[in-house]
Amino acid sequence: MSGRIVVLTGGVGGAKLVLGLMQVCPAEQITAIVNTGDDFRHLGLAISPDIDTLLYTLSGKANAAQGWGREGETWTFMEALKSLRGEDWFLLGDGDMALHVLRSHLLASGETPSSVTARFAAAWGLGLDILPMSDDPVATHVATDQGDLPFQRYFVEQRCMPAVRAIRFDGAGTARPAPGVIEAIRDASTRAILIAPSNPWLSVDPILAVPGIRDALAAAGAPVVAVSPIVGGQAVKGPTTKLMGELGLAVTNAAIADHYAGVIDGLLVDQRDGGAGVGIAHAVTDTLMKTLDDRARVAQAALELAERIAG
Amino acid sequence: MSGRIVVLTGGVGGAKLVLGLMQVCPAEQITAIVNTGDDFRHLGLAISPDIDTLLYTLSGKANAAQGWGREGETWTFMEALKSLRGEDWFLLGDGDMALHVLRSHLLASGETPSSVTARFAAAWGLGLDILPMSDDPVATHVATDQGDLPFQRYFVEQRCMPAVRAIRFDGAGTARPAPGVIEAIRDASTRAILIAPSNPWLSVDPILAVPGIRDALAAAGAPVVAVSPIVGGQAVKGPTTKLMGELGLAVTNAAIADHYAGVIDGLLVDQRDGGAGVGIAHAVTDTLMKTLDDRARVAQAALELAERIAG
Repeated sequence: MSGRIVVLTGGVGGAKLVLGLMQVCPAEQITAIVNTGDDFRHLGLAISPDIDTLLYTLSGKANAAQGWGREGETWTFMEALKSLRGEDWFLLGDGDMALHVLRSHLLASGETPSSVTARFAAAWGLGLDILPMSDDPVATHVATDQGDLPFQRYFVEQRCMPAVRAIRFDGAGTARPAPGVIEAIRDASTRAILIAPSNPWLSVDPILAVPGIRDALAAAGAPVVAVSPIVGGQAVKGPTTKLMGELGLAVTNAAIADHYAGVIDGLLVDQRDGGAGVGIAHAVTDTLMKTLDDRARVAQAALELAERIAG
Repeated sequence: MSGRIVVLTGGVGGAKLVLGLMQVCPAEQITAIVNTGDDFRHLGLAISPDIDTLLYTLSGKANAAQGWGREGETWTFMEALKSLRGEDWFLLGDGDMALHVLRSHLLASGETPSSVTARFAAAWGLGLDILPMSDDPVATHVATDQGDLPFQRYFVEQRCMPAVRAIRFDGAGTARPAPGVIEAIRDASTRAILIAPSNPWLSVDPILAVPGIRDALAAAGAPVVAVSPIVGGQAVKGPTTKLMGELGLAVTNAAIADHYAGVIDGLLVDQRDGGAGVGIAHAVTDTLMKTLDDRARVAQAALELAERIAG
């Protein structure tokens, strides 16, 4: 089947869905629009966690057991950094440093995040288009009972322990969608737009907060289908369910559908939860993605739901 | 014996002499003034090779067999960098990266090279004062038969193969000695000023090119003694003898003494060469520094020559 597939994605769960898509359609048909609200500067280096997770996952370099970083990573840099009394709350693997150092250098030389990302994807032979949501800086901040925390301080240093009261995306008001983002969503050849099972509040909302993207999704000719991040009343990984509780929400697919109201046309839900209260088109499958086959199956199910909606 | 020892030093050979000094007098008495003409930016990182060589050598982290870098180094960063098609002519070890990244970050945060160097020396428990020659940028350039080359391109990328016609130190005209440099040279308690057996043209001349340092040495109350880099008509390491030939000089201690005329009061020469034609006070010993004992012996001999000159 021809036609472009667009997928909005955040971290590990999202990368798994994109890897699944790569199994069921040609890479050239896929455009991934990636959250950059997690991006931050650390030791002067430009770190872009969700872009990197996607690059590692798609190139077969991800450390699947650990859930982040590179397979076969070494840690000599961190040991030396500690001996110099450098900040060590954020772990930087030796191989991982190559992405950060080269990205920082290219950005300082005047390249855009889009261009750097495309360069890395090409170097590793990935055939899809990977687009940061914006080339302008957007920084997710979490207002918690422990005060205001930049995302990585909340997520990595504090391990999501503080209770979240509100989330904001600094810079989103004036950020522009990266080149190709709106075009991909609007493209007449686009046959499906997926929202990966990333955290809706922390990983997908930053993308929707970039002016123009939410409107483009609402007006898109292609059906927009989200894969629910809930599996058996829990999130597979990360703080989604804890966060939903702190925001006063029930951990249900109805709450996910409500959150994406006006943006999505359909929701793919897990068979353990079902679609009770989901007031839009939905499909039910096993959405747990443990194996590569699982990932392909979930991607295929999301595409089939989109196809059904498109009629 | 009390009183301060000041030593002007460049790369590996100089670091060996400073390590020898650490064996024969308390670290607190030693002030090393280090060449920063080799410093450069690579991939956006601030790299300071002679400072780092001294830090590694004195802290026991140097890879003695290799002659540069760290013992037990790993190379995961370089492998990943190559996979991303980053520049790979200059080798950056994983542990070595900690110095470069932290230095770059601290400089960008407003610290001076002096302050960063002192911080690193303290973190590794080194008791001596290590002073960059200047906190202002000075960049050694080599005019060669292959054109004008920044120092690291000549030294590392081209392996000193191009024939040198002239050497210049960009920025030296307006650079100021780093805090403590002139004070250490002038200090009434200073009992000896040594010039390490580093390359006089490439490693020591940049220090002497910083306005005020040469004059301070000429006017110093303490005797100034150089350790000749020539051993048996050759340099132990690096391009000294090749360079002397290209500059039309005989590879003799007389030429070394001439080069330092007006700066030094004495020259320590190797027993294989002797002091023929050296028109100033000199002493003869085995200056080859293979073992730690050798280093202590050479340091001791240089101090004794200084003592003899001081009378």
